[in-house]
Amino acid sequence: MSKGLLLVVSAPSAGGKGTILKELLRTEDSLRMSVSATTRQPRPGEEHGKQYYFISREEFQTQAAQGMMLEYAEYVGNCYGTPRGPVDQWREEGLDVVLEIEVQGGAQVKKLAPDCVTVFITPPSMAVLEQRLRDRGTEDEAAIQNRLETALVELGHAQEYDYIVVNDRLEDAVEDMRAILRSEKRKYERNADFIRKVITHAETIR
Amino acid sequence: MSKGLLLVVSAPSAGGKGTILKELLRTEDSLRMSVSATTRQPRPGEEHGKQYYFISREEFQTQAAQGMMLEYAEYVGNCYGTPRGPVDQWREEGLDVVLEIEVQGGAQVKKLAPDCVTVFITPPSMAVLEQRLRDRGTEDEAAIQNRLETALVELGHAQEYDYIVVNDRLEDAVEDMRAILRSEKRKYERNADFIRKVITHAETIR
Repeated sequence: MSKGLLLVVSAPSAGGKGTILKELLRTEDSLRMSVSATTRQPRPGEEHGKQYYFISREEFQTQAAQGMMLEYAEYVGNCYGTPRGPVDQWREEGLDVVLEIEVQGGAQVKKLAPDCVTVFITPPSMAVLEQRLRDRGTEDEAAIQNRLETALVELGHAQEYDYIVVNDRLEDAVEDMRAILRSEKRKYERNADFIRKVITHAETIR
Repeated sequence: MSKGLLLVVSAPSAGGKGTILKELLRTEDSLRMSVSATTRQPRPGEEHGKQYYFISREEFQTQAAQGMMLEYAEYVGNCYGTPRGPVDQWREEGLDVVLEIEVQGGAQVKKLAPDCVTVFITPPSMAVLEQRLRDRGTEDEAAIQNRLETALVELGHAQEYDYIVVNDRLEDAVEDMRAILRSEKRKYERNADFIRKVITHAETIR
């Protein structure tokens, strides 16, 4: 069995990556969502290993120092990160793992897991993004302007990613993600052993 | 509109690439099959621009010398090659072009059209390839052995290709080809202009 893929997905806020990944996970049996680790306290109803791995600050720092966090950041006094242990284990079992991270984290993961496949999900235009933010109706004008400014900065990171998926029609974006998963498995590097086996076995039976 | 893809497909003989491409062309509206040029005489029923572009040896040599043949070879006294003019024109119109060539030609095309996407189609094993050759019942034992030896040499070229598609179940192989076409269009390099436009337009209206 060949090793599963590590798919890293980023998008500006309100870029719609949540909906796309939910749909993708619903239909792709061999895909798993990575679970983050955090040093913050669990909230009622949250389970260790489900929403997060809840670990101590000391444990977090040790893991990070040993390169066991694929990426991490501190946010309002708590550490958040992606432990590579579960990711590596799933991949060894042949399962694909998707990692949803901030735009700034993509390059970090690429350094520790160079064989990862990175996807940047973008809105079709800033005007559409603005409309979506207004349609949600959950934020005031200042918050919307702030999100748009942030999105613009985040778009500048798109060039660090392997693929660009435009979130226009949901079905198209999901189909793009599926195509990326499928075609990446066909890359030569991931099939070199197979080709060698075909050649070697042929030479053996001759 | 973005430029179409150039898909280069090779396979050992009896690798089944003909069937796969036929099915792919049937279902992908934006895909065109490249037409080769040759210096041999047209046979009854053959049309210029359909089966081949029938050109003189002089014209062929001029085009090849000017880098207007994406790849070419001489075979039993006649020249065969892929004129890049029609390929480039289709691609400019946003159409994808598939080029079916000998395993040795893949590297040649990559040199003249570095943005091409190359796919090597392989049988699942040499045993399966042997069985397929026997099932066709069109060749004697010596010819079959010869084809198998050639296939083994051709498999050694697989490493020069971007993707490996295993021709086990036809539907799977065709779906792999479709995924490759779709995901390659999502590569960052092919969407850099789009991202720039999203950013620039946003900055303009601010």
